[in-house]
Formats: sequence, C-alpha cells, structure tokens
Amino acid sequence: MSRLFTFTGGAAGAWSVVSLSGVVGESLPAAPRLDIAGGEAASTASVAWRLRGIVSNQRYVTRVENDALVAKQVALGRPSSDRAALIPIRKSAAWWALPQDERRAVLERSRHIELGLKHLPAVARRLHHCRDLGDGEPFDFLTLFDYAESDAAAFEDLVAALRATEEWRYVDREVDVRLAR
Amino acid sequence: MSRLFTFTGGAAGAWSVVSLSGVVGESLPAAPRLDIAGGEAASTASVAWRLRGIVSNQRYVTRVENDALVAKQVALGRPSSDRAALIPIRKSAAWWALPQDERRAVLERSRHIELGLKHLPAVARRLHHCRDLGDGEPFDFLTLFDYAESDAAAFEDLVAALRATEEWRYVDREVDVRLAR
Repeated sequence: MSRLFTFTGGAAGAWSVVSLSGVVGESLPAAPRLDIAGGEAASTASVAWRLRGIVSNQRYVTRVENDALVAKQVALGRPSSDRAALIPIRKSAAWWALPQDERRAVLERSRHIELGLKHLPAVARRLHHCRDLGDGEPFDFLTLFDYAESDAAAFEDLVAALRATEEWRYVDREVDVRLAR
Repeated sequence: MSRLFTFTGGAAGAWSVVSLSGVVGESLPAAPRLDIAGGEAASTASVAWRLRGIVSNQRYVTRVENDALVAKQVALGRPSSDRAALIPIRKSAAWWALPQDERRAVLERSRHIELGLKHLPAVARRLHHCRDLGDGEPFDFLTLFDYAESDAAAFEDLVAALRATEEWRYVDREVDVRLAR
C-alpha cells in the first residue's frame, strides 16, 4: 500500500472536473478530468497538471481527539460518494516558522479538528502532505474529500467554516477542484 | 537555499569516514568518504550509498524551548569543527501510530530537547527528515552533528544519553557514521 498519491488533471481519470477555481493566489490550469493513482504516475502527453502528496502521521491530534476521529471516520471511496473535492493549499512562511505549541493553539482556536469531526461520517477526508516531498513543491497539503450529492450542503458548511478561521489567514494559496463521478 | 540535502558515501567528499557501524538493525556498506550536497546529487559510478533528507519545520518544540535553542544554537561548518557524525535512524510503526501528545510526552520524559540544549554550542546539529520524501525511504531521520576534536567527549555524552532514553526504544534501525576532515 503506497502512502504516496499522484493527482493528475488532464484528459483521463475516474472523476469529471465540475469546476476548478483559485481561492487565494494562483489557480491551476483547466482540465476536464482528474486521475488519482497510488504511487508515482507515469507521464502522459495529455496532462494539464500533476500534484503529489503523501499520507503521513498525525501532527496535532491528541489521543482523545484521535479516538473520537477513529470512532467516526470513514474511508474514501464509498459507493454512495458520487461527489468529491480536491483542495490544494499552501501556508505562509510565518506559519511554518511558528513552534509546535503556537501552531496547535491556532488550530484549537480555529476548532479545526472539531469541524472535521462534526461533518463525519457524511464527508470523508484524506490529507496528503507535500511540503517535505522535496524542494519547491507548489502546495503544502492536498486534501481529498468525498461525499454523496445529498450531503453537498454539509461539505459546503465545512469548507466555509474552515475558510473563516484564524488558521486560514496563514493560507497563501488555495485552489478548489470540484469533482463528480 | 535548498532544504534538501544528499549524503553520498563513496570515493569522494570533504569528509573522511573514520568508522561506520550498525547500532540497531541493518548497517550501510563501507565507504571511504562522505559527500554532503545541497539538493539532489548527480549520480556517479563510485557510490556505496546515497541518503536524502529535508530540513523542515519544528515538530515538538514550544515557544519557550525554541527561544532557548535559538539563543544557544550554532550553524554547522565552523572552522574549528574537524569532527562530524551522520546518524541515520528509523522509528518503528508503533512510534508513528502514536498521536502527537503521546509522542511529545515520550520526548519530554526522554529529555530530548534538554539534552540537545545542554551540549550546545559545543555540538552543532542539523536534522533532516526522510520519511515523507516518498514511499520506501530506508530511514526516517538523518542527523548531522559537527564539533571540534576537543569536544568529542561532549558528543559521546550526548549520543550515549539519547540512546538510553525511552524514545530510543522506538528506534528500530540506526547507523553511526563518524567523520573527520
């Protein structure tokens, strides 16, 4: 099982791109479809962009939070999940310069973990880290969400709530790619 | 300035390998010299092994600890530093499965930050992360230390103290490469 995933915007892939928009900073080129592959994807001619991210250990959650998340969390790929979103974000140098306790305090004041928990199990989520894949990655995180069309309002609530937080003031690039099967 | 560094054991490099030994688990092949380069190193024929690691944000230190470290810390490469050590380690799956608060508690009980601080500025240190460079990296961390030959006893104290900690029970592979200019 690969921890690394490659997201390719282009002519191929199981997901159709419903919309692609820059939220903060530079957007990504338009692409009709999104392919999600475990590991490194082979290069093909019809690629608009390719992003990589790796599933890693928890950086902030406590044992209590972890147990609450594990009790409610669901894996991506349920048959009912006909909608998805890929949200690449980059955080500012000021964020990365904060020590661990101050980053955790921002997350707490932003109720980040609580917000994710509140929308489980309707909205499934997998976080991929990019920042430490190498020098010069365009984003720090890629989050992939999936949900049933009937839970679309819950997903919109979650995204709107996160974007209104103190934590999001540190986001200096964000793209929002909406997907349908 | 690259955050990524490549460590190449082979026929070339500024450092002479004084000793290379496996502490826990599989060792690395013998090599006469070590080359340390920023970024990705070009491939050459005379390479025994090549390890990569990336300098990243702090994962555990608080603001108070960070300020104490910044006040005492020194950069690698002082003219007086004629000795160095490269210590690649890997931690067990049990370590990576712990939530953040429990990993921090192990570090605290192990006095990891305090031990590093105690040996500053005699022993300079740079930590490189490998685990999230991709799938299947052989180590999780590469730590490079340098010091003057006259401070070798301080370095031996530091290494022995760390290896005696609770934290080190989670280390399932460790190699110790000692270097001289």
